[in-house]
Amino acid sequence: MGRWEPDAQGRLQQAAMALYTERGFDQTTVAEIAERAGLTERTFFRYFADKREVLFGGQPQLLDQLTKGVAEAPDSLAPLDAVSTALQALGATFGYRRDASRLRQAVIDANPALQERELSKRSALAAAMADGLVSRGVPETTARLTAEAGAAVFHLAFEQWLADDTHDLAHFVRRAVADLKSSM
Amino acid sequence: MGRWEPDAQGRLQQAAMALYTERGFDQTTVAEIAERAGLTERTFFRYFADKREVLFGGQPQLLDQLTKGVAEAPDSLAPLDAVSTALQALGATFGYRRDASRLRQAVIDANPALQERELSKRSALAAAMADGLVSRGVPETTARLTAEAGAAVFHLAFEQWLADDTHDLAHFVRRAVADLKSSM
Repeated sequence: MGRWEPDAQGRLQQAAMALYTERGFDQTTVAEIAERAGLTERTFFRYFADKREVLFGGQPQLLDQLTKGVAEAPDSLAPLDAVSTALQALGATFGYRRDASRLRQAVIDANPALQERELSKRSALAAAMADGLVSRGVPETTARLTAEAGAAVFHLAFEQWLADDTHDLAHFVRRAVADLKSSM
Repeated sequence: MGRWEPDAQGRLQQAAMALYTERGFDQTTVAEIAERAGLTERTFFRYFADKREVLFGGQPQLLDQLTKGVAEAPDSLAPLDAVSTALQALGATFGYRRDASRLRQAVIDANPALQERELSKRSALAAAMADGLVSRGVPETTARLTAEAGAAVFHLAFEQWLADDTHDLAHFVRRAVADLKSSM
């Protein structure tokens, strides 16, 4: 108690990802994660509500950043381009995390319940972008559709970025937006 | 046994929807559905794998219809317009089911687990449309993005159609596609 724990959150995250990868998400307990990190279960629950949150934490900040990015994109931009600008900026904040993102994705791909959770996360991303568009004066239905298209863009771009080693996430966002425009 | 059961499937569906609406989905058992329909549990399981399938059955046919509708839309159409054509045709097959669709939606809206299932259904719709686009020669990434946009169009159009009493579903599909095009 009161022991100094340098980067406890980071150590718990690393330990959890290692165990999820080795044993599978369902087969890992919080006690094992804490033990692997050399910390207590109590410390785990100071940072995470449960073992799913290790994979899906940080979402509120991400959503706020997206809403703000869309709302504050230059006025001259069409709705989809405002979404593209915000997604490219979001991409910059992921830039250094490609390996960690790959591990996380492999854990999610191996578990149907986590995949369903990932789909809800995508809905939340779309809702955050729609909020940003509405604050730009875009009519609500157009805002929702554009934001859903933006969520699809991000999902595809993210997948392509994980499979690549040379381009940044923003590159794939721009390319996917251009692809989508070419379909109309 | 061997008793004649006129429209057993329809009676089970009606009984299930009535009970899901009255008591909630989780509080309803298959035994109660069968009893309300004046049929046996065994008969229920001849038509449905479980009580969720009463809400989500018929999906394979729907998906085939969508893939075919996209694939066979006129060659001259841009990918999004091929998707729009297929969704409008699908709308025609729902035309007479507005009241039943409203009941179903209310049951799903009241239950988070069913909402997650509905999100997976939407992914399946998108995948079916993407297959149709690929068979038209549309590159895979463009096909996926366009199909996701199409799924968002259908979701919004369906919601607007449920809240309306004068226009058909195809009307809302056309309007949503026009909205989406206006965002670029």
